[in-house]
Formats: sequence, structure tokens, C-alpha cells
Amino acid sequence: YAQIRYNRLLETNPNLKCDQCDRSLGENGGLFIRRARLVFSGNVTDRISFYIQPDLASSVSSTSLNFLQLRDAYFDVAMDQKKEYRVRLGQSKIPYGFENLQSSSNRLTLDRNDALNSAIANERDLGVFFYYAPQEIRGRFDELTSSGLKGSGDYGMLGIGVFNGQTANKPEANDNLHAVARLTYPFKLTNGRFIETGIQAYSGKYTVTPDMVTSGVAVDKSYTDQRVAASLVVYPQPLGFQAEYNIGKGPEYDPAANAIVEKSLHGGYAQAMYRLEAGDQVIMPFVKAQYYDGGKKHEKDAPGYLVYETEIGAEWLINKSLEFTALYSIGDRTVRNAANPDNNQHGNRLRLQAQFNF
Amino acid sequence: YAQIRYNRLLETNPNLKCDQCDRSLGENGGLFIRRARLVFSGNVTDRISFYIQPDLASSVSSTSLNFLQLRDAYFDVAMDQKKEYRVRLGQSKIPYGFENLQSSSNRLTLDRNDALNSAIANERDLGVFFYYAPQEIRGRFDELTSSGLKGSGDYGMLGIGVFNGQTANKPEANDNLHAVARLTYPFKLTNGRFIETGIQAYSGKYTVTPDMVTSGVAVDKSYTDQRVAASLVVYPQPLGFQAEYNIGKGPEYDPAANAIVEKSLHGGYAQAMYRLEAGDQVIMPFVKAQYYDGGKKHEKDAPGYLVYETEIGAEWLINKSLEFTALYSIGDRTVRNAANPDNNQHGNRLRLQAQFNF
Amino acid sequence: YAQIRYNRLLETNPNLKCDQCDRSLGENGGLFIRRARLVFSGNVTDRISFYIQPDLASSVSSTSLNFLQLRDAYFDVAMDQKKEYRVRLGQSKIPYGFENLQSSSNRLTLDRNDALNSAIANERDLGVFFYYAPQEIRGRFDELTSSGLKGSGDYGMLGIGVFNGQTANKPEANDNLHAVARLTYPFKLTNGRFIETGIQAYSGKYTVTPDMVTSGVAVDKSYTDQRVAASLVVYPQPLGFQAEYNIGKGPEYDPAANAIVEKSLHGGYAQAMYRLEAGDQVIMPFVKAQYYDGGKKHEKDAPGYLVYETEIGAEWLINKSLEFTALYSIGDRTVRNAANPDNNQHGNRLRLQAQFNF
Repeated sequence: YAQIRYNRLLETNPNLKCDQCDRSLGENGGLFIRRARLVFSGNVTDRISFYIQPDLASSVSSTSLNFLQLRDAYFDVAMDQKKEYRVRLGQSKIPYGFENLQSSSNRLTLDRNDALNSAIANERDLGVFFYYAPQEIRGRFDELTSSGLKGSGDYGMLGIGVFNGQTANKPEANDNLHAVARLTYPFKLTNGRFIETGIQAYSGKYTVTPDMVTSGVAVDKSYTDQRVAASLVVYPQPLGFQAEYNIGKGPEYDPAANAIVEKSLHGGYAQAMYRLEAGDQVIMPFVKAQYYDGGKKHEKDAPGYLVYETEIGAEWLINKSLEFTALYSIGDRTVRNAANPDNNQHGNRLRLQAQFNF
Repeated sequence: YAQIRYNRLLETNPNLKCDQCDRSLGENGGLFIRRARLVFSGNVTDRISFYIQPDLASSVSSTSLNFLQLRDAYFDVAMDQKKEYRVRLGQSKIPYGFENLQSSSNRLTLDRNDALNSAIANERDLGVFFYYAPQEIRGRFDELTSSGLKGSGDYGMLGIGVFNGQTANKPEANDNLHAVARLTYPFKLTNGRFIETGIQAYSGKYTVTPDMVTSGVAVDKSYTDQRVAASLVVYPQPLGFQAEYNIGKGPEYDPAANAIVEKSLHGGYAQAMYRLEAGDQVIMPFVKAQYYDGGKKHEKDAPGYLVYETEIGAEWLINKSLEFTALYSIGDRTVRNAANPDNNQHGNRLRLQAQFNF
Repeated sequence: YAQIRYNRLLETNPNLKCDQCDRSLGENGGLFIRRARLVFSGNVTDRISFYIQPDLASSVSSTSLNFLQLRDAYFDVAMDQKKEYRVRLGQSKIPYGFENLQSSSNRLTLDRNDALNSAIANERDLGVFFYYAPQEIRGRFDELTSSGLKGSGDYGMLGIGVFNGQTANKPEANDNLHAVARLTYPFKLTNGRFIETGIQAYSGKYTVTPDMVTSGVAVDKSYTDQRVAASLVVYPQPLGFQAEYNIGKGPEYDPAANAIVEKSLHGGYAQAMYRLEAGDQVIMPFVKAQYYDGGKKHEKDAPGYLVYETEIGAEWLINKSLEFTALYSIGDRTVRNAANPDNNQHGNRLRLQAQFNF
């Protein structure tokens, strides 16, 4: 699928930006290819399958866009005939957070929430994972995606794993692996409605590499990087509700000490949505509010963030291959790093996206 | 298709180079993969089609070659059953100049003319475009390509659009979009011969980004970037003739002021060619002369150029999949930038290319 | 195919590293995607075929992994109906050394030997090659690969060629081409066993480019780069033996002069292996010892190396698509460059690899 965006309509503050979200937000932003992904996948035997998903809209520097870089590259080895027990090896999504696992092609809002997405840049890392789900639950995961209810796909009812911890497409930078575990359950009520609840946590050591630190900022060899999160999804049949929250600790810039130190973090989001079918077309209005207070380890100097953001919008699925989203965003973001120890920006804007599924 | 070149035969001046043309020209040049392109395209519905063309011979730096980078990535949405009215969204060729729109796999000379190609690096940008052509004219565009007459393909009889303006695979750098319009008409004479005439123009604000300016050179926030061009193509049945010319203004280095300033520019080319069929094979001798006096906004310091070049050669199409081109080039190029305010080089060379179509 | 590795088990010295081998060896190494390759190939006519093999695990810098970069991109033009005489144009493996030509998916040890592999980084360059093999010998080359005997594939009985000489995906840096020639013969004994013997040599001028030299180190414009090698392979039916040795000269860092100078080099390896079939599965234990004393022209400052390494391990082919290798490596490596004129490291480690063929 591919997503093309324009974010500059009705903009009240061009300095309200968010690199983790979309680099074309605010000043100097224009039309932007946010994602262009192809999937190569298949079964190599009855038990072994592979999945390779490159993104053709990856940057090699701030001025050179649209190179091809891997997102997923993994192999699943099923341990039984029914594929209830699977081992996954390679670069893949870390089972941490429902919205993180949900494909961007299925998400209603244009960007993931800051609170849980700041855990793992690009949602992925290189590791070994074990997934278990009984056949009936695997069927539910499939149904929740294929029926248009915007499920997360099948990352097991139980998922555990170890991974490098520096996130996707970055080399390991210390001698510790991260560990992760997740338990989720998609309840099917007698009236056919689905409710999914999940808990997940990970722990490891994260190294802020020298290329990501402003000269003069004090930095430790590595930092404890730990989070635990709860997820609740009431699927839109037709009214839905979704919320996640996480707490933890990790590296964060401290303006007083001009150093990156270990600090606690917390935040989450709540979203309501409605699924309206009109013949072949589907319209889904939604509203989402999010909050995050903590560091972003992947950005320069692991800046501290304080984020309040509300989004109101609708996704319009014209047919299986073409989808438009419009949303109005009301944001207030404070970023603290070496370049600016207290950069507060607030403003509103209208954002548009065309998505093509192929 | 893929093109492999060697440019060093009978070379009289190794300092006669042209980065926009082919980085393996002159000193330290050797065998070079100029292009290696795959196309992924298809219809996703009756009305919507996509076209993704990556190039596997893109550089990420001057010492690291052959990475994959997007060239085209766009979607066409037809507004009517006959596809006479189409909207194109994404990164694609800007409808400015016949030779710019013609595929490199069809062009006789190894490089495009400096005068019109300096308008848009890699001929592409990210934008929204509207194309209109009546069914009969669409048929002519198809015929001109499929019959081996080296047409431009179908970019509409009328094309209008807006685009970022910093050219392909570069992020937008200001808050202005460029606008473009083109009108072209392929006349079919009663004797079956084709003549195509076109006019086109674009206008916008171009920003010379800091990474493209030598330290000490004065630079404005942005520059007016405007051009208008006329095109004439008499298709080779068997004798053909082709000419284009454009005038405009844009950023250009001024040695006296050591600054990049807004200056006027003009230039074009004329080419004669002959199409000789010999059984399954086709031989097309050609001669082309070009002239350009103006800036090149995409290069470091937006250098001023004064270019005179004559090329005499022939393309030999052995079969549908293999094609050789040899040309003798007589060039005189003056480049004015911060490193050298008056660098004049002239010389001759023989250039060879093997092209594989697949 | 794809290879995922973990190299940190039972490690006695985290400073024993080898960039040419595997960048995840030693300190800060973790799980690592060593290769992820797709092949696009086909016949465009009876006589012309193409082969494009990108690697999806290429780095653009030390902190940015998993971009797509070309490995092979070539065209074969057969000069006769039986394809005994072929011309190859493009980026492909240089016919120098049996282990260099053998696919990494077939090699028993995780890395190639330093002695012959230091001749051509990534084993490839851009050039024009001529290959000749009579039909019967072509059949043997095919049989040696398809039967699981781990042959090199068909690079001709006789191979000669010219190529840029700065190795794959690097631009030419001087005005000289390298030349190479190789003669190999796969004997088939009356008892059905295969023995292959080969000789090969190349010569050219290599330029150590400025980005690969530490400031202050004296460097010449270019260096003689010449090698000759002998190869012997007794295919594992079931006991096999393999050895190669090369001598030559090339650029190498001289600590006394703080300069890169022309020095002689020599080294090789010997390997014994046993092919054990157990139903559908194959297990191949092996032992390999290698030695190299000479420069590595592709690394920063063309460091001098003195390498002793012994590897004991086994490859376990579970089925056609899944393969595990475990090996215990005992190494002693001395590296001499500007940063450290005498860096000697020795140690042992257990290395693991999972390989998926698709």
C-alpha cells in the first residue's frame, strides 16, 4: 500500500512539528509520500513461511528520500500442524501495544500515539519470538482484520521474545538483549461483538549512540529501558472504543544537568469510532485524545516530551483500493533538548491522506 | 531496462565533465551502470491504476553506488469510462518538455539536453496532476511509442498540475507549490506521417538548501523559478526532426558578488534522425546540437553554465531486448561556481552504451 | 535466501573482530541479518539472459542498516546455440577463487577466507567478461551445484575479463581497468567422483580514495594490485577436501612510515568436510584453517593483516528451505592501521546461523 499526504491546510502554527509522526508536518512541509510498501511472502514448506516487506519511502538523510529499506524480514517456523505454536526469527514487529501492531493501512488516525509508539521506533526490531494461539483464537484474529474491523493481525494470544533493543535497521550497540512478553484475548460476546484486552511489557538496556548526542551533553554507557502497558479494544460494530496506557522508564534529556538521565515516563490515548456502511463504501468518523510525558530515546539527545493532542476526523473507504482520510488536529507539544530546553508549540491544522491498497 | 556505458574512448580532455548527464564522463570514469529499472504496475480497479518504477543504480553518496531509489510512484484515477480525464497523484514526471517526458530507453542520445533538463532534475516531482486527451489522441500517443517512433508516451493533450518544486526524492523546502501546464498535439497528416507541437510552462519558488551552498556564498530564502518552452517533433518516417527551446529565470551563481542571485536563462537543441529498417533490425543515425546559457539550480551553488555541444551517432536495435548506441560528442562547457568562477573545458570523445530491455 | 546470525556465545575476547567477515562479531554485536537476497532473472531471448540480485541487508552508514543495494546486475549474451561461448556485461562476480565464486548459501563456513576474499570486496565488480565451457563441462558445473556438492556454479572452464577494479558499487577512481583470467577443470573420475583444479590471476591499478585514508597518512595516486591463486577441490563424496592459496602485491599501511605503500601478500586455507545423508536431511561436519599475511585494500588505511584462524563446525540441512550452521572459531588476528599500529587479538567463540532458502 502507499500513502500520500498533505498537512498544511488551515495551519495555525508552522512550528508545531513531530518527527516521529510525519516529517512533512509544519514549516517547509509539502506533499509527502509517507509509506510505499510491497510485500513478498509465501510458504517455503508446510511449516515454514517468510514475509519480506520493504518500504520504498525511506530516507538515507534529511535531504535524500525514497530509498528502499527493509521493514519486515522474518521467517515463521510452525511447531505443529495447526500452526498454533510458532517461532519467528528476523526483523518484525515487537509485540508491544495494539496500535503498534495494527498495520498503518488499517489505522484510522494518520499517526500512532506518541506514548506507546515512542517505545519502539518503526515498531520493529531484530529478534526471536514465540507465539501461541489456539486455532479458534487464530480464526478470530483473522476475522477481525478481514472483516474491516481493523484488528491487529495475529501476533499470538501469548507472545514472548528477545530482541536487540536498538530498534529496526540499527545495529546493536551494547551486549544486552531486550525481552518482551504480551498476553491478549479477543473475547467474542454472544451477540457476536468482539472485545479485546491485552497486557504487555518489555525490559532491556538501551544505548544512546554518539551520533544521537549533541556535543557537550553528558551521556551514560546505557540506560534501563522498561515499560508495561494495558490495552482495551471494543471493536466498531458499529460503535467502537479503544484505549491504551503505558508507564515505564528510559533515557531522557535533563535541561538542568545538560545530561541524558534515566527518568520515568507515562502516557496513553483513548479513541472512539463509528463504522458506517453505505453500499460498498464505508465511512468511519473518529475522535482521539492522547497524552504523553516522557523521553523519546530514538531522537537526538533523547528529548523530553509533553504532548496533548486531540484529533477529529473520518476515513472514507471508497472501494477496496482507494481510501481517503481527513482529520483536524489540535495539538500542544513541548520538547526539551540541548538545542532548546523548553520548546512549547500549540496549534491546529487540517490533514489529508490518500491511501492506495494494492 | 538497464544501461551500461563506457565513455572514455578517443577522449581529448578528461576535465570535460557533466554531472547532470553522466557521472562517469571524463577523468576517473570507467564502466558505469547508468540506469537499472524495474516497473511494477497494474490496475487495482477499472478506474484506478498504479505505477512504481524504482531505479537500482542510485547513489547515496559519491562513493556508494547502486542502491534502490524510487523514480515513479503514482496512481492514476480515471474520471470517466474511456479514461480521457485522469487525475495522477504521487511522484511522476512533470509535464515539461518532450525530451524530458520521453523515456531514456527510447531517447537516441545518451543524455538529455541541458537546456530543458536543468528545469527538473530526474524529470520528476511529487504532485497532483490532471491529464486530458480524447480517445483518438490517446491512440496516437500509444502508436507513437509502440511503433518504434520514439514518442513521449501519454501525458495528455492537456496537462496541468501542482508539485513541491524541489524535484524528485527531495523534501519540500519552502511553503510554496509549483504549478505547471502543457498543451501538445500530435497531428496525423493524410500521408500517415506524424508531427507533434507543444508548449509548456511552470512557475514556483525554489529554495537552494544549505547543503547545496559553499560556505561564504550569499543566498536568498527562495528564488523565482519560471520557464516556458516550445517543442516540435517531426517523427522519423523515415526522416525526422526534433527541436525544443526554453527561456525563463532561476537561481544562478554570480562570481562578482559571490552570491546566488536570480538570473534569466535560455537554451535548447535541434536534432535530425533517420530510421532505417533492415529485416528485424533497426538502425537510426542522428545528429544533435544543443546550447544552454543559464543556471543549474540542482547543483552545488547553482552554478552558471554556458554549453555548446554537438553529437553525431547511431542507435542499433539488434532485437527487442538488446540495443547498442555509439556517439561522438564535441563539447564546450563553461561552469561558474564558488570553487572555480570560470571553468571552461572543451573536447571530444566517443561514447558507447549497451541497453537491455526486459 | 536470507541468513540471520548470532556470534556471541562462549566468546572469550569481545575485541576480536573482523569487518570484512561479519560486522556483528565481538563487542556490541547482537542478532544480525547478514544477507537477504532476492533474484530476478530470466531469458529475454534465446541467446540473452539477465540476472539481477539485490541484497536487502546493505548499510548506507554504520548506523543505518537494511537498505537495498545491487549485488549482481548482468546480462549474458550467448554467441552460439549451445551457449558454450558467452559474453557477460555488468556487475558480477570476478572469476578469482573458487570460494569467492561459490554462493554464500552453499559455503560451509560462515565467512570466506581472508586471503583470497581480500582481493575483491563483495567478490564483484563492473566489467565485461568472456566465458567458455564445452557442453559436457557445463553439465558438470550444473551437477556439482544441484546435487548438493557445493560447487561454484558455471563461470566457464576459461574466463577472461576486464573490470573497473575499485570493486562492487564503488565508482571507478582511476583511468585503468583491471584484467583477470581463470582456468578451471572439473575432472570426473571413473568411480564418479569429482575433483576440480583451477588457476587464476588478475592485475590492475587500485586507488585508495581520500575517504578511506586517515588524515596525515601519506598515500600514492594508485597502487599495483596483482594476485595469482591456485585452487583444489575434492568434492565431498562423502569425504571432501578443499584448499586455495594466493600470492601477490597491493597497497598496505606501513606503521614506520605512516604511509600506505606497495607490499607483497600471501595466504590461503585448507578445509576438510564430510557429507552425511540421513533420509531427507544432510549433515556436513567440517574443519577449516586459514592464514593471511598482507593488506586489505578496501578497509580504512589499507591495514596490514596477520590472520590465523581455525574453525570446526557442522551444517545441518533440515530440508531444502531451512539450514542451521554452528561453528567454533579459534582466531588470532593482528591489524596494523593508523589508529593502532599493532592491534593483536586472539580468542574463541561459538557462532550460529539460520539460513532460509526461498
